[in-house]
Amino acid sequence: MTKWLDSQGIDEDVVVSTRIRLARNIEKYKFPNLIDMEEADKITEDILNALMEVEEKYLFYRNRDLDQFERNSFVEKHLISPNLSEKVDYGSFFLRKDEKSTIMINEEDHIRIQVLLAGLDLEEGWKVCSAIDDELEKSIKFAFHERFGYLTACPTNVGTGLRASVMLHLPALSVSGQMNNIMEGLRKMGLTVRGLYGEGSKALGNLYQISNQTSIGEKEEDVIKKINKIILQIIARERNTREHILEKKGIQAEDKVFRSLGILNYSRVMSMVEAMSHLSNVKFGTDMGLIDKIESKEIVKLMLDIQPASIQKYQKGEKDSDHMIQTDVLRGQTLREKLKILEG
Amino acid sequence: MTKWLDSQGIDEDVVVSTRIRLARNIEKYKFPNLIDMEEADKITEDILNALMEVEEKYLFYRNRDLDQFERNSFVEKHLISPNLSEKVDYGSFFLRKDEKSTIMINEEDHIRIQVLLAGLDLEEGWKVCSAIDDELEKSIKFAFHERFGYLTACPTNVGTGLRASVMLHLPALSVSGQMNNIMEGLRKMGLTVRGLYGEGSKALGNLYQISNQTSIGEKEEDVIKKINKIILQIIARERNTREHILEKKGIQAEDKVFRSLGILNYSRVMSMVEAMSHLSNVKFGTDMGLIDKIESKEIVKLMLDIQPASIQKYQKGEKDSDHMIQTDVLRGQTLREKLKILEG
Repeated sequence: MTKWLDSQGIDEDVVVSTRIRLARNIEKYKFPNLIDMEEADKITEDILNALMEVEEKYLFYRNRDLDQFERNSFVEKHLISPNLSEKVDYGSFFLRKDEKSTIMINEEDHIRIQVLLAGLDLEEGWKVCSAIDDELEKSIKFAFHERFGYLTACPTNVGTGLRASVMLHLPALSVSGQMNNIMEGLRKMGLTVRGLYGEGSKALGNLYQISNQTSIGEKEEDVIKKINKIILQIIARERNTREHILEKKGIQAEDKVFRSLGILNYSRVMSMVEAMSHLSNVKFGTDMGLIDKIESKEIVKLMLDIQPASIQKYQKGEKDSDHMIQTDVLRGQTLREKLKILEG
Repeated sequence: MTKWLDSQGIDEDVVVSTRIRLARNIEKYKFPNLIDMEEADKITEDILNALMEVEEKYLFYRNRDLDQFERNSFVEKHLISPNLSEKVDYGSFFLRKDEKSTIMINEEDHIRIQVLLAGLDLEEGWKVCSAIDDELEKSIKFAFHERFGYLTACPTNVGTGLRASVMLHLPALSVSGQMNNIMEGLRKMGLTVRGLYGEGSKALGNLYQISNQTSIGEKEEDVIKKINKIILQIIARERNTREHILEKKGIQAEDKVFRSLGILNYSRVMSMVEAMSHLSNVKFGTDMGLIDKIESKEIVKLMLDIQPASIQKYQKGEKDSDHMIQTDVLRGQTLREKLKILEG
């Protein structure tokens, strides 16, 4: 499902993934929300030309050549944004063959470079992003303001256009009630903490996404370094708390892990919220060596797989409706089947 | 473990077992609480002589020839009472080779005849009890009062000395909140309703024991008929409620059943109260055809197996102590191992 996750990442017992995103716009065109079809195609053409030399590393897709199902599957694999998938006529994207980077065209900005890596790898992510940025800049003149920096459709991205985010699995800090404090501290340092699906979404499965809040007034390398340093501190604290839990309440922690595995293996109706909570417990178990039959990364994949392609769509769904129950029944079935394979 | 359970019983989807007990005392001796060793041995001798003709059907055990562990294992199999097992010097018993009946000597009364059958089988139980009673009466003169009937150590047993009890599994009536009403009605009809382990114990695992409260003023056959009629009504009501639950909330009921099976299969710490509740759900699942890999009777055996030999001893145990946790860990392990075998 998710190729980019397959490679070995750093600090993967705590860090699920690193994502770097650069927003760029071409000076001579209006922002995507103001363009027409003709202009959208010209933008796409310019970018195709700019990337000609590195083309063989990528697959190129135009949204209009894909059906709804195909577009959704790219979203589900986190390779393109839900926003891009909705730009049926204007949108297109380059996908690197190893699926580690995507260049989205006519999303919120003309160009969104995205790099996704397993584990903690901010510097590598930045390097890849920056190389693509350099490649584009050879032939494209970006919208740039001497005082503000790169110009973007949304003011929060003005400046470097950089968003660096790291997804962490923090079961021990969550269960021991330390997360509120940590989130407060991160906010004071200009970082944002969100649940798996961005703004306002709850931290399902104890997955937290930490990223820089603004991209103005700081150099890219400094932002990357700052976030990296903070993440390393959180990793250490999470690991300490895990050890502490296993020392003090080992058998109870093991019990919780295996009960979750049992419920996932046997239940017939499973909501997304409950599934994420059990998967989080199981991931804790695999990372701490309590479960040895299952690889931790496989649990991460399940966590990502069961996410609805669009959280908005999910949240709008009526609760307790027959449709909801059918979805929960299907989710239960999928989880049972996948775990049966993983447990061997 | 429990031979008497192995035979096919009637209405076993609701009725776990039928137990008939007759209390008798020999006229020429004092009640067991007043006798000395010499008298105890004389009583035993009289009964041995009386049963000489049917002896080959039985195994005879003197408590003093058994060690604590052996005595406990008879208690755990429900073949003798905890009370008899404590009479280390005075107690002895005949056990029929198919384990369906026991004749306990010097328990609360000189003689306690007990018949245990799988499913609902009050008439057969009474027939077996009565035949043993007749055999004994050929050579023994029982303590008998013209107006009161058979005399016993405890006044509640005076009269026929008969206690007929039926153990029912009533998950649907329990979950739908009908049990309080039913218990109230049964009490008005002179019947007692108790949990698995008798007086005051909660109905663990939705197992209810229904029996006659007194044994005075009614003929044995009438008591048996009356209880049988009432039990048949409760069975019908339980079955209707089960069907209703499956019709209205089929997938939720199935989910509950399989979650319990999953938790039993995976948990590392399991209290007796929780285990009984999950086993009850699983038994419901096997009886309703939701689980087909496991036989319902095997779940009943697990329910009986995990009972502590003496509920008093169990209730006295300190909660949250290390010993409690060790027991719960061991119980979890035993259940996992046994279920693994049952699921194949």
